[in-house]
Amino acid sequence: MNNINHLLIKDAGNSIDYDNGQICGNAVHNYTKYLKDLSHIFEDEVAFSNSDGNKVIYLVQAIFPVQEGIEGGLFYGRTIIYPGKVGNEYYMTKGHFHKKADRGEFYWGIEGEGLLLLMDENRNCSAEKIYPGSLHYISEHIAHRTINTGDSILSFGACWPSDAGHNYQEIMDNGFSARLKEIDGKPQLISTK
Amino acid sequence: MNNINHLLIKDAGNSIDYDNGQICGNAVHNYTKYLKDLSHIFEDEVAFSNSDGNKVIYLVQAIFPVQEGIEGGLFYGRTIIYPGKVGNEYYMTKGHFHKKADRGEFYWGIEGEGLLLLMDENRNCSAEKIYPGSLHYISEHIAHRTINTGDSILSFGACWPSDAGHNYQEIMDNGFSARLKEIDGKPQLISTK
Repeated sequence: MNNINHLLIKDAGNSIDYDNGQICGNAVHNYTKYLKDLSHIFEDEVAFSNSDGNKVIYLVQAIFPVQEGIEGGLFYGRTIIYPGKVGNEYYMTKGHFHKKADRGEFYWGIEGEGLLLLMDENRNCSAEKIYPGSLHYISEHIAHRTINTGDSILSFGACWPSDAGHNYQEIMDNGFSARLKEIDGKPQLISTK
Repeated sequence: MNNINHLLIKDAGNSIDYDNGQICGNAVHNYTKYLKDLSHIFEDEVAFSNSDGNKVIYLVQAIFPVQEGIEGGLFYGRTIIYPGKVGNEYYMTKGHFHKKADRGEFYWGIEGEGLLLLMDENRNCSAEKIYPGSLHYISEHIAHRTINTGDSILSFGACWPSDAGHNYQEIMDNGFSARLKEIDGKPQLISTK
């Protein structure tokens, strides 16, 4: 008689394609941001209104193993920003503080070249280069935006607390205090403070 | 006169080598676990005492951007488990609950083959295959241990809350309620509950 109780070894249900950072699996949520969703983000409003509002600027994938707002859990995501510019500003994300502003976040570069723009609550900006393998810690109380400075897709991963939430309003109202512009063919970060 | 205020674009200070998942940078902490640190983990105490206690079983790297115990921050790490066995059990980590037991964690497989052994507070075990790209969410109140079932290094990454902490004692005292053994040349998970 064989009394051995064998337990099943399962698959985790989600996986990462290391070629491009894509998150695969059943529980993946996908979001698309079009240019029309990014009004008042770019300085050059004329160039913005002359551009195709239905152009896809970035895609976000995320998995939410627990309900949003629950303390102690984590979410995991991956963002792609397409290459391009509006006027002399590169395609970028809207940017946000966390709703629970003392929550941190990790970002890591997967593919392409870009910039992580950071701003504290006194509107002091700083920036870090994103490249394949770059590992970024976004401290508490820091707004964050990502910008594709390259000619190809910028892809990066992220992990953040399930109770962090998003506060987009502050950035919608007042923007960041720095703009990344292409000047003389190179990305240059200009303080507007 | 040029009044443009250029801001410096910095490097993040840490990076990941995607060939092997190694975390590089100044702030990386490194920990080595030797076989002698893993007493009472393996069932075969005779095989354990006949093995070289100074053999390296696993290495952990981690970065701690905030102080341990702070709520809202995150830590990021990478573990290597070497291939090998004690008796018919594969090399594995000690395993732990989180000290703040309701904190979750993400693991992702980087290199090699292994198993993530999970156990709830009622001592029910389950297990997920670790392979390059596998993405695992460790829910709140779940003990977790990793096991190298392959012939080469098992490497995986992790991200967890800065206030999660480690509770090793429960596992030191009572172990997991399942053991992964090599039987007929294959890993088989046996309930001991």
